[in-house]
Amino acid sequence: MSVPITPALKDELDIVIPTIRNLDFLEMWRPFFQPYHLIIVQDGDPTKTIKVPEGFDYELYNRNDINRILGPKASCISFKDSACRCFGYMVSKKKYIYTIDDDCFVAKDPTGKEINALEQHIKNLLCPSTPNFFNTLYDPYREGADFVRGYPFSMREGVKTAVSHGLWMNIPDYDAPTQMVKPLERNTRYVDAVMTIPKGTLFPMCGMNLAFDRELIGPAMYFGLMGDGQPIGRYDDMWAGWCIKVICDHLGLGVKTGLPYIWHSKASNPFVNLKKEYKGIFWQEEIIPFFQSVSLPKDCTSVQKCYLVLAEKVKEKLGPIDPYFTKLADAMVTWIEAWDQINSTGTGAKVANGTANGTANGK
Amino acid sequence: MSVPITPALKDELDIVIPTIRNLDFLEMWRPFFQPYHLIIVQDGDPTKTIKVPEGFDYELYNRNDINRILGPKASCISFKDSACRCFGYMVSKKKYIYTIDDDCFVAKDPTGKEINALEQHIKNLLCPSTPNFFNTLYDPYREGADFVRGYPFSMREGVKTAVSHGLWMNIPDYDAPTQMVKPLERNTRYVDAVMTIPKGTLFPMCGMNLAFDRELIGPAMYFGLMGDGQPIGRYDDMWAGWCIKVICDHLGLGVKTGLPYIWHSKASNPFVNLKKEYKGIFWQEEIIPFFQSVSLPKDCTSVQKCYLVLAEKVKEKLGPIDPYFTKLADAMVTWIEAWDQINSTGTGAKVANGTANGTANGK
Repeated sequence: MSVPITPALKDELDIVIPTIRNLDFLEMWRPFFQPYHLIIVQDGDPTKTIKVPEGFDYELYNRNDINRILGPKASCISFKDSACRCFGYMVSKKKYIYTIDDDCFVAKDPTGKEINALEQHIKNLLCPSTPNFFNTLYDPYREGADFVRGYPFSMREGVKTAVSHGLWMNIPDYDAPTQMVKPLERNTRYVDAVMTIPKGTLFPMCGMNLAFDRELIGPAMYFGLMGDGQPIGRYDDMWAGWCIKVICDHLGLGVKTGLPYIWHSKASNPFVNLKKEYKGIFWQEEIIPFFQSVSLPKDCTSVQKCYLVLAEKVKEKLGPIDPYFTKLADAMVTWIEAWDQINSTGTGAKVANGTANGTANGK
Repeated sequence: MSVPITPALKDELDIVIPTIRNLDFLEMWRPFFQPYHLIIVQDGDPTKTIKVPEGFDYELYNRNDINRILGPKASCISFKDSACRCFGYMVSKKKYIYTIDDDCFVAKDPTGKEINALEQHIKNLLCPSTPNFFNTLYDPYREGADFVRGYPFSMREGVKTAVSHGLWMNIPDYDAPTQMVKPLERNTRYVDAVMTIPKGTLFPMCGMNLAFDRELIGPAMYFGLMGDGQPIGRYDDMWAGWCIKVICDHLGLGVKTGLPYIWHSKASNPFVNLKKEYKGIFWQEEIIPFFQSVSLPKDCTSVQKCYLVLAEKVKEKLGPIDPYFTKLADAMVTWIEAWDQINSTGTGAKVANGTANGTANGK
């Protein structure tokens, strides 16, 4: 007689999936995802029907829903770009979010065992991070590991983990130029490690396989203005990554990267990607030094306060590069207003969100 | 008919081994080390004869040699502590150093293949580091990997690598308290990665399995005052690690950690270790914030200049903790004087070193 085990954080985590197609990819994830609630953000044509496999508990939002729920503030949510997924973060009522792309499948570890990516992300989020000093044996909280000689004892409690960034077997997350130069490169190296990205260090955060603590960092997980009507694409997760890292460093929160791997099935078209990316390739040369040097004032004690100050600084320092950044800075403010509206305890927000819930529901 | 392959850097690298016993451990390393020149630094009783297996090319220095070569400056070289190994760095005439403990053996990778640790260190040292931005797929220069999307193109040349820090299977490098709490813990996790430790991040550098570019960072690889007559032990490599990291960050050089693994055969006695370490366990709580906040002036453009300024700051900021740090700061200055004397092109230094060469020579 087997006793059913309740999956970790079953009622405290939503899985957010941006998509333009039927979600057949969920079949492979069924053993791992079915206990959880899904938030599907339908991108593109809202009249199209997205099929979700039987048995999943989900809510689905298309562009019409987003416009209705946010009204004029819907302008901060991107269209025709997977950046739209951050709408799902906003309307979730849970403490944790896992987001995954619909071309990502279950990977296998070197022993051939299927990897429960979500379970590993939850482990990463529930144990502390160590951003203030590097541990050479990687995650010191993992079984079989610890802090090495010379690691200050006062730092061994670590800090709360806000973000868990997972990786990809098969198709690596390369930019268009690298895709073009190395069309056949596949990631086959399974690196059995989770590590904290040190304080003060930026990293390229990919949104394909990402989990975070919504209460700790949610309002900074804005994926920017990309896609339709914007001069840039494929920088949505990068933008969010730079912002969350600066804010996590300021607030003393941790960001981890490494395990778990998912199987990324197919490379997107490098020519299309180049068109979306090329301004970003220039701009990032100025954006990254900006984020590397930006500092937030001490009285920024909440994510929202940090994010609004960051928006001001973006306008001031990056605005001169291109008018796009002024628009983006304004959208960052709108995003925070929308977040606070949807997440306030007032009834108005609840009703708005409740309406959307009814759009489509698997059960 | 097989064509003999010349091992990488055969005439440009010395292997430095501090020891108090016969070097039988070299038998296992013979296939990998025999082509290279060894510098053996004999610790403890200089009248004892250290046996070196047949066929190795080596020079050996005991305490009498060190005293004769350095004269009064020999005071900067520790006695009865493996910190004495840094004397070997000083007298080497090569560009690269690999140093290993005599209780370290050849490890196997997950496929069962014996790991040529030295070959991997050489790879690490000969390819660039990326300290200014984190690459989520680890070493971007490794076969099958690259820079991921969002990595600034201007940073993809990387910087010169000064240090390669290798890890240990079996007995992990734990401090005495952790050894006591987890007497049975063994490191069995092979993490197939090499990574750059980001700029601005300190790490606990272990001297068991360590390689570096002597021309780039040698004069900062001072292992401090430990052991006989000193209030502390087992912080020799840590001290060097803090100093080299601050100086590498200042000079724009890279420090890598990860592969290769060696097999660390047996744990040292935790009670003895506790006695050596306990002051360090207190002191590191103040030392690490010091190294985290120290900054070097722009006109420090050589390792020596950096190191002398660091010595001044150690005296000023750490001196008040304990008179030991004043003595250590003075020894740092003596070390640089001795280094420059031995490494000058003048004949005096050459003769002194030549004499030592004759002490014992395998061929």
